[in-house]
Amino acid sequence: MCHRQVEYVKNPHLDSMEEDILYHLNLGTKTHDLPQMFGDVKFVCVGGSPNRMRSFAQFIHEELELPGNIADIRDICEGTDRYSMYKVGPVLSISHGMGVPSISIMLHELIKMLYHARCRDVIIFRIGTSGGIGLAAGTVVITDKAVDSCFRPQFEQVILGKVIIRSTELDEDVAQELLQYSSELPDIPTVIGNTMCTHDFYEGQGRLDGALCSFSTEEKFEYLRKANEAGVRNIEMESTVFAAMCRVCNLKAAVVCVTLLDRFEGDQISTPHDALLEYQQRPQRLVVHFIKKRLGLIS
Amino acid sequence: MCHRQVEYVKNPHLDSMEEDILYHLNLGTKTHDLPQMFGDVKFVCVGGSPNRMRSFAQFIHEELELPGNIADIRDICEGTDRYSMYKVGPVLSISHGMGVPSISIMLHELIKMLYHARCRDVIIFRIGTSGGIGLAAGTVVITDKAVDSCFRPQFEQVILGKVIIRSTELDEDVAQELLQYSSELPDIPTVIGNTMCTHDFYEGQGRLDGALCSFSTEEKFEYLRKANEAGVRNIEMESTVFAAMCRVCNLKAAVVCVTLLDRFEGDQISTPHDALLEYQQRPQRLVVHFIKKRLGLIS
Repeated sequence: MCHRQVEYVKNPHLDSMEEDILYHLNLGTKTHDLPQMFGDVKFVCVGGSPNRMRSFAQFIHEELELPGNIADIRDICEGTDRYSMYKVGPVLSISHGMGVPSISIMLHELIKMLYHARCRDVIIFRIGTSGGIGLAAGTVVITDKAVDSCFRPQFEQVILGKVIIRSTELDEDVAQELLQYSSELPDIPTVIGNTMCTHDFYEGQGRLDGALCSFSTEEKFEYLRKANEAGVRNIEMESTVFAAMCRVCNLKAAVVCVTLLDRFEGDQISTPHDALLEYQQRPQRLVVHFIKKRLGLIS
Repeated sequence: MCHRQVEYVKNPHLDSMEEDILYHLNLGTKTHDLPQMFGDVKFVCVGGSPNRMRSFAQFIHEELELPGNIADIRDICEGTDRYSMYKVGPVLSISHGMGVPSISIMLHELIKMLYHARCRDVIIFRIGTSGGIGLAAGTVVITDKAVDSCFRPQFEQVILGKVIIRSTELDEDVAQELLQYSSELPDIPTVIGNTMCTHDFYEGQGRLDGALCSFSTEEKFEYLRKANEAGVRNIEMESTVFAAMCRVCNLKAAVVCVTLLDRFEGDQISTPHDALLEYQQRPQRLVVHFIKKRLGLIS
């Protein structure tokens, strides 16, 4: 009988390690009973900001009508300030900071944690914020393909100084299911499209308002137009490595980001604070709707 | 008479903007009096962890014997959880998260802030942690050259989908001055050498203990030996973009990191917590010594 049909890790060295210290999560196989702590996890939601991921955990707690007080939900990684992690029933909510390197450290340690905890059938969502291309601010974009700054659906991973190309294909069924459920939330405008992942917020995304800028307004708009023609609907900074790592590690993954502005209209995020807060809840609400459907809490 | 001999920004678009919102710092030119708040800043210290940068601000406050209570030092960016910032006399202490994209967002907004505040003669230090190559854990490395994963002193910046190469040369005089002062702190073993900056903590740094690993122990050691031969003494994840941006923007910059382990001996950070804490204070102590010398507080 096969006990673990799908393994989330792809590393033959791991099984020979006596102990595995997940340094940036402040967890370890000798110091924590990971199967007991995390064995029932079925959904993992990740996002950049620690405060937002705490709010999300509280929101999930209310929506799943779980027992206990939301004030008691504590940060499992509280011994470190690199990431924050909250567990609410079968849902984990984790922050990943900004950019590909930051999320990749968290994903390595999260995926090993799911492996050590013997989790199965996990779906992982990135719920984030982004700049939109030709979309009204507040639109939710479900990612079809995560693409690089040349609009290619690939991620370049450097291993021992050599570049390896990895596919950034996400789970099509989860994306379609999210799109279908979005029609049940009429106050959340939602589209499906490509998401461009850059390694820089200013020059890399064609912003004219950084400390450095060597291109003209016309060149900026030309780049955004080309992105739009390649099916790019929003720009953020984590999706390619997220898609690539989850794919290699057999984790079903989706990316759901709200747009905070339309980059055809500007570079600065000057949307009022309250509107930004409401926008940021939209990907959360869509993903919670998905989770409740999957758990049979709504039909 | 020339009022501003050196401009920290390199962006002709900035002067035509009515307002500049430094979104990730939660500051702006219309909402904050930046010259009043920051005009006297002469030293900026940046590091990954928000808690560490708060401790550093408290340490600086004590060492400079400033009036007031250290409990009153508040996070200037408290409205956002992207970064933390503390000001203590002429010293700013700011967190930058992990990885090149995360530090680059902070640097763009910090450099614009220094420009709007009309600061002059600023020296900026990255004080961080790193993996050592052939050095005992706890050794402080002052960076000579910041190099990429192929040991080249350059940073590849993607602008509108095209790769631009930038030099990662740091300020030689500041590095030599730091090395000289380190001899006055005999309990802090200090060397000068090259620092390799990677975009990944696991596969990119040749670790065998990530969720993914496709190379052998021998291949790992071969890579580390080659790095060592190229003068690399430690590995971290921010130095190349830090050096490149500061250089283009005329900011004198230095990188001072402590090693938490010797990568020839292992991959996991299993050093006891108390030893790690003491190690992390070493770059802080060296930089504070430098600042006190420059301020004439010690001879």
